[in-house]
Amino acid sequence: MPAIGIDLGGTDIKGAVISDEGRILHQDLVSTQPESGADGVADRIVGLVGSLCDTHGVTLDSTSGVGVGVPGVTRKDGTVVIAPNLDWHHVPFRQMLQDRLTGSAVELDNDANVAALAEAKAGVGAGCDSLAFLTLGTGIGGGIVVDGRVHHGASYSAGEIGHMVVIPDGPFCGCGKSGCLEAISATKGMISHAEKLIDDGLVTSLKKEDLTPKSICDAAAEGDEIGEATVDHVARHIGIAVANLINILSPEVIAIGGGISAAGSLMLDPIAASAETNTLEGMFEHTRIELARLGNDAGSIGAAYLVMS
Amino acid sequence: MPAIGIDLGGTDIKGAVISDEGRILHQDLVSTQPESGADGVADRIVGLVGSLCDTHGVTLDSTSGVGVGVPGVTRKDGTVVIAPNLDWHHVPFRQMLQDRLTGSAVELDNDANVAALAEAKAGVGAGCDSLAFLTLGTGIGGGIVVDGRVHHGASYSAGEIGHMVVIPDGPFCGCGKSGCLEAISATKGMISHAEKLIDDGLVTSLKKEDLTPKSICDAAAEGDEIGEATVDHVARHIGIAVANLINILSPEVIAIGGGISAAGSLMLDPIAASAETNTLEGMFEHTRIELARLGNDAGSIGAAYLVMS
Repeated sequence: MPAIGIDLGGTDIKGAVISDEGRILHQDLVSTQPESGADGVADRIVGLVGSLCDTHGVTLDSTSGVGVGVPGVTRKDGTVVIAPNLDWHHVPFRQMLQDRLTGSAVELDNDANVAALAEAKAGVGAGCDSLAFLTLGTGIGGGIVVDGRVHHGASYSAGEIGHMVVIPDGPFCGCGKSGCLEAISATKGMISHAEKLIDDGLVTSLKKEDLTPKSICDAAAEGDEIGEATVDHVARHIGIAVANLINILSPEVIAIGGGISAAGSLMLDPIAASAETNTLEGMFEHTRIELARLGNDAGSIGAAYLVMS
Repeated sequence: MPAIGIDLGGTDIKGAVISDEGRILHQDLVSTQPESGADGVADRIVGLVGSLCDTHGVTLDSTSGVGVGVPGVTRKDGTVVIAPNLDWHHVPFRQMLQDRLTGSAVELDNDANVAALAEAKAGVGAGCDSLAFLTLGTGIGGGIVVDGRVHHGASYSAGEIGHMVVIPDGPFCGCGKSGCLEAISATKGMISHAEKLIDDGLVTSLKKEDLTPKSICDAAAEGDEIGEATVDHVARHIGIAVANLINILSPEVIAIGGGISAAGSLMLDPIAASAETNTLEGMFEHTRIELARLGNDAGSIGAAYLVMS
């Protein structure tokens, strides 16, 4: 039985009819218009669900229901505790959708958890039992799947891989702590490291004002000293976090996605090398470390799996 | 229905009849005599099981079976891959016991996993859903319980909390890596840190030749500068590992046991303080960080839970 997956973003709401093998059968999008408030967003999601069903020629009753990935912190009861891009605080959004979709299963979860579920079910980990997912970009998001389900833990916020402390008293992180992986290996940390090396006077083609993860990776690919050193620094610490995930959880698959991962093997190979160095003997070879496969489709695919049995 | 729990050590085999609430109903021990080989040890375990049943007035059939905690690396099929204190390599020990105990359930697992299960079921985490257990001593062992069961992961060796890397390129660890928690916060790392501070010339009542975790903790309790600094250093890095367990897994309980934990709140309070500093906001308060409660009984109690439904 297919399910409807909704990927709620700050700009667009993407929706799709997803087959029970995790394929996109039909997709569409509408603008989010967060200024219309949670009620307005709920109405637009319901409208999108209706048009997806109509175009695909099914009724909502003949699907497993509607799953929603939300860009924020969620709770088991379906409350969105905070979603900065939507300016939501403590919105009982699952219930708001349920009130509009009476009789259908409605579930929601954090977008990184949903993407982890998508990769575990239909992406790089298809059919695996356990997977950890990192998304590298402005921040570092994470999600963990154990026994085929998202692991939420006691706080319902488990899987905060970006806030694993990898350098005690290391760089200040936006979360208020120090030494988090995100402070070192997300966009800002990557640029800061390259800036420092430029200040140190190393020879480079990179200019401070043009530093982005892409320009740094491009320079590294061409053998630029600062480009290479920055990619090494970023990848090495991601590799330590990956190793610690293996030392602790030993998942079958660790999937790496997000913007910075677009550099492909330039980033993945040193991550894997550092992970191998830092993983206890006998454990490394049981985990596949691979690029995520579903890209922007992970949101709607994973959301649909929230309501599939 | 009670079960038989066996705690196999390098010196003694401890066995107990355990109630289904995790209480010890009757216990006994025999010497291990590892020089008699795995067959000899299996025979001695079977003898102990028989005498426990006899003394308690039950037949083995009227128990849930026999669980065994093993001081080594185990596999799902019940093979003991390596057990240094027994000098075992790739011993199919579960099958050897099963051949001797036909018709009864027989299970085995690593001793730290078994202790984690005991604390989750009948110790400090009684009734909890998820727990991480650290045992601080010569090494740092660990075990993780998720959804009431030991989490083994793809390698079957998950829960190696002692080998979480907490200082990149930190002190050399016996495992061959660098910067593992065990290299910093187990006995050897603790003594090395105090020695270094003595070499640095800090005022202290401690003498190099008398350094042990206990003498260091005792000195700290009396306000000795090196004692306090060493406990702080050790506890701070345990706290980082604890924080990372929370950031990733968010377990309901983190239980801390083993010799070094005998220092009680002198060790636990700075561990908890460091953990709070290094945990993402909103997560810390969902996890209880407490001393393990079952001490040496955790081995037999947890082993019994391996065969309870």
